[in-house]
Order: sequence, then structure tokens, then C-alpha cells
Amino acid sequence: MLVPGRVYLFRIPEGKEIIEFLREFAEKENIKVGIISAIGTLRNPVIGYFMEEEKKYKEISLTGTYELLSLSGNISLKDGKPFVHAHVVLGDSEGRAFGGHLVRGEVFVAEVFVQELEGETLERKPTEHGLALW
Amino acid sequence: MLVPGRVYLFRIPEGKEIIEFLREFAEKENIKVGIISAIGTLRNPVIGYFMEEEKKYKEISLTGTYELLSLSGNISLKDGKPFVHAHVVLGDSEGRAFGGHLVRGEVFVAEVFVQELEGETLERKPTEHGLALW
Amino acid sequence: MLVPGRVYLFRIPEGKEIIEFLREFAEKENIKVGIISAIGTLRNPVIGYFMEEEKKYKEISLTGTYELLSLSGNISLKDGKPFVHAHVVLGDSEGRAFGGHLVRGEVFVAEVFVQELEGETLERKPTEHGLALW
Repeated sequence: MLVPGRVYLFRIPEGKEIIEFLREFAEKENIKVGIISAIGTLRNPVIGYFMEEEKKYKEISLTGTYELLSLSGNISLKDGKPFVHAHVVLGDSEGRAFGGHLVRGEVFVAEVFVQELEGETLERKPTEHGLALW
Repeated sequence: MLVPGRVYLFRIPEGKEIIEFLREFAEKENIKVGIISAIGTLRNPVIGYFMEEEKKYKEISLTGTYELLSLSGNISLKDGKPFVHAHVVLGDSEGRAFGGHLVRGEVFVAEVFVQELEGETLERKPTEHGLALW
Repeated sequence: MLVPGRVYLFRIPEGKEIIEFLREFAEKENIKVGIISAIGTLRNPVIGYFMEEEKKYKEISLTGTYELLSLSGNISLKDGKPFVHAHVVLGDSEGRAFGGHLVRGEVFVAEVFVQELEGETLERKPTEHGLALW
């Protein structure tokens, strides 16, 4: 059974790659399971769309600065280490929304909430679909 | 006053209808009030847009596989039983985003966080708008 | 170190301006730090896109009724008072998604979750970018 652990609300410094920062944060804080949400602004985000038939992600590279309208994700273990899985919705200068699996993105601003969950671990394992799942 | 109750982080099996699964989960776990968030991938999601004048939802059926960029929702009581209200943002293969009130959708992948809230109940009652609200 | 405080799940009355309501709610409840999420329906929302070079928000006014697909935000202090920073994703009658920094919007329906965080404060201060950040 999972129980709530530590909570964090912080800003990621400008210029950091967001997924790598979050992964390193989880590793540094020894967070094995948790959930993440964030808002902010990202530069040149790369998002993924999973192609069921091809069993892999198609990457879509967006150019420029996008509002980070939502980042929803979780922390769990993969190969014994903290792994961050996050999906994002992004807004352009006309207010149009885009989004996908977050591959990477440079932080302009990112205000992040992390809720650690303790009591059991979730370990991602490869599946026949080409995805690593609990 | 509400206080935090149990927390859950789990994956819904492939092929399940997401709203029905979440409702049954709340019923099985006897969760009367709570909040839900999820990410994943849905097949053939149906979303709703509430038409104020007509006082009903217009249903929009999307065909194919969409990234579930965010699911935000809550659990409360309706007719004495747990009821799930959720809105979703979905991403297509070009990274474009769509969304609405989640009517239904088949799970390819769904990673779900549920936070139970205890101490009081929230009961949806019909309103003059055609919506069932607390 | 932050620790979880009070939790709230409530509906904002129809006709209220959402950002002002949330700010007043935080002030009335004396919530200095917290996170917010919401779903619902907004009328005539105004969203912002931050222009890095101009160091200010461009405002985009949407007309009509939009599904509030997600509101993700936080409460912190600015000029010593509770301040709400929220980003939204909105859906139109065709299921298309839009979004940005939430400037304002009239509530038709808003179901809101607030999680207070205690133990330290976060104070927004002006930066060289034109944004007020922790």
C-alpha cells in the first residue's frame, strides 16, 4: 500500500533540460515513487506520439517558446533507478494547444510540484507493446 | 472538513473502458470523495462539450489512438454511488491537442493517481442547467 | 521543508471571476503556499502568452463558452499576499484545445481542488525577465 511521503514545490533554473532535471532530482532525493505536476514555459520542446503498430515513439520537435500549460507525470523505477514519465500540453503564441509524451525541453520557467509516495515500489518492465510499464 | 485519505498509483489494464473502470475502482475501494489524475494513451475517445443553451452535452467521437496528455477529475456521490467526473486533453499523431468532458475511451495505457478525501461527502444533484453539481 | 496542510474540494459559484475568487479564497483561508487544480467550464476566458523578448504577456481573448480541460496552478506570496498563478487548457465546441497563462475567466462551472503546503513560504520577486518568480 502506498502512503504519501515528502512534498516539494520548487522552480527549475532557466536553461535546464526539464526531464533530466526531474530525474536527477528524484535520484538526489531518493524518490522511488511519486507524482509530478508543473506549469511554466519551455523552449524548443520535443514531444512524442506512440505509434502502436511500429511500437515506438514518433518525435515531434516544436520550435520556439511554448507556455507549459500542464505537465502530468510520475516517478517510478526503471532498471533500478528513478524514471520520470511525463506528458505535457503546450500553448503557442496564438493560444493553440499541442502536446504529447515529453521527450525533452529547455526550461525558461518551470514551477514543479512533487508528491512522494512511499510503502511500495513500482518497477517499469519492457512489454510486448514496446513500452516499459508497471 | 475534508482530510486526505488513501492514495493509489496504478495502471489500468489494456482494453478497459476508462470511465467505467475508474467508477468501479471507486466503488470497490469505497472511495466517496477524491481526486484523480492520469496520463497514458486512449483509443477512440469520446469527449463532450456542454451546450449551455441546449442544456446537454454534444458528443465528439475521435477515431484512432490519442496520447492522454492529462486527465483531471474527481470522485463524488451521485444517486448515492461513487461518480467520476473527468476532463481530458488528448494529442494526435501531429502533436495537436483536443479535449473535453470524458465520456468514454478504451485504454491502451493509463497510469492513474487517486487521492481519497475523507471527512465529508459531496453529492451531485440536478441543477437548472442540466448538470449534476455539488 | 514543506508539509501537506489542509485540503479543499469545492465548486465556485456561477458568474464569479475565477482568478479573483481563488485569490480571495486563499486570503480568507490564510493559505500562503499551495497547489490548485480544477475542471469545469469558463465563459470568455482571457489567456496570456509570455513574450520573452518584449518581457510581457500577450493577451488572447476567447469568446464564448469553453470546457476547462485542466487548470494547474499554485499559491504563493507576492507583495506579502496570496497570489494565484494558473495555466489552463480549454476546449471549444469542436473539441479543439487552446490554452495559456490564465488571466481571467467567468465561471460557469468550476470544481476546484486545493492542497495547502505548510512549513515555509515562497515569495515571488521581480526578475530581469519581467516575471515575478520564487
